[in-house]
Amino acid sequence: MTVDSGHIVAAYDDEMQQLTRLFSRMGGLAEKQLAEALTAVERRDLDLAGTVKDSDRAIDDLEHEIDALVLRMLALRQPVANDLRYIISTLRTAADIERIGDYAKNIGKRTIAMSSVGTPPMVRGVVRLGRLVQNMLKKVLDAYAQGDIQKAVEVWEADEEVDSLHTSLFRELLTYMMEDPRHITPCTHMLFIAKNLERIGDHATNIAETVHYHVEGVPLAERRPKADASNYAVVTPGEETDK
Amino acid sequence: MTVDSGHIVAAYDDEMQQLTRLFSRMGGLAEKQLAEALTAVERRDLDLAGTVKDSDRAIDDLEHEIDALVLRMLALRQPVANDLRYIISTLRTAADIERIGDYAKNIGKRTIAMSSVGTPPMVRGVVRLGRLVQNMLKKVLDAYAQGDIQKAVEVWEADEEVDSLHTSLFRELLTYMMEDPRHITPCTHMLFIAKNLERIGDHATNIAETVHYHVEGVPLAERRPKADASNYAVVTPGEETDK
Repeated sequence: MTVDSGHIVAAYDDEMQQLTRLFSRMGGLAEKQLAEALTAVERRDLDLAGTVKDSDRAIDDLEHEIDALVLRMLALRQPVANDLRYIISTLRTAADIERIGDYAKNIGKRTIAMSSVGTPPMVRGVVRLGRLVQNMLKKVLDAYAQGDIQKAVEVWEADEEVDSLHTSLFRELLTYMMEDPRHITPCTHMLFIAKNLERIGDHATNIAETVHYHVEGVPLAERRPKADASNYAVVTPGEETDK
Repeated sequence: MTVDSGHIVAAYDDEMQQLTRLFSRMGGLAEKQLAEALTAVERRDLDLAGTVKDSDRAIDDLEHEIDALVLRMLALRQPVANDLRYIISTLRTAADIERIGDYAKNIGKRTIAMSSVGTPPMVRGVVRLGRLVQNMLKKVLDAYAQGDIQKAVEVWEADEEVDSLHTSLFRELLTYMMEDPRHITPCTHMLFIAKNLERIGDHATNIAETVHYHVEGVPLAERRPKADASNYAVVTPGEETDK
């Protein structure tokens, strides 16, 4: 090996490490943002909600850095096999993390909006959904860092619980709205917060599928059937008295 | 050039054309799915809503085909410069189209759910929002196929109208819910349908940014400020009488 090609290999390794570092920082920020969004909802903490709303920018910037680095690596290093799969998987997963940041930001915005219309309903249930999703995100980022298939599969399976909890929250929120028109605005924002959390769970599941694909080279079977039936949920007035 | 390298160049050109064909088919299916979803809402056509719900699979399959082709091209052809940008842009845009398909599918599901609770409210307004978004999607796919920056910029600008129409629909739907608890379930599904349409508009805007990046090699300025204020919308009972 000549000195030159040694340099090239060293630069390539540096870039791979750089990619991993950027991605890990991005994942860490998204975890923090989600944790803070949930605390903001739980404590009706508007300062924290404002911080969450603004912290999305750093995540977007990291995604752009990752995109640029990936393009440069593909153009200059022409990676193949495992490395190529890892690089493309990271590009894809960074897009999932970026969306997770958007959803957390949206939770911050809605927390601020709800503050003017009294105590939001169903806070405990929605935060519980959020903590489930937060665990999924933490676990799937570990799975990613460690190439741990077992953890990825656990995340993939956990999404079913998230979907079914989301569906029952959806129905309860509708019921609550029917009891008193003053509940309608805050409940609507809670519906969207719950939906955001359910979507974050979907993105964690996507990442689990990407980890599986990257490590094993084959997809994680068929996409898991969705247990989220909230799209079909119907509650009619009168029903709410049956609780 | 030897016969062998001639073969390689021909195979490369074939693959580039294949990528463009797959992408164009995927875009066409998403346009069709969105158009049918809107017609299903407009006419309360449950058969069509069912078709929309099921047609998402073909879009997902095409995305997988595109992903696999891109990985193969990156590994075997090691494209650079313009070609590399085009290939990565297509990978990214295919992910946007896949999401658009998911949102259209969700509109189909909600149309079915609403059918059991009477005539959904605000159909005209929501369909109008949908037609705006449908035009954006059509135009941005043309911009993509033709590398037409002007059209991409028009789409990027049109998103502001979508956001502001969405915000006013959001407020009107809340108002409507306060008038009669029987409106709550159908209005909630209409809220989510409107949100789905607004998100499709966002994805069309993403695609416009990708077209700009691919053609010009630089991003389309800063990301457009969002005019969607629905996240902050608050309506209190009593306000609805001011209409």
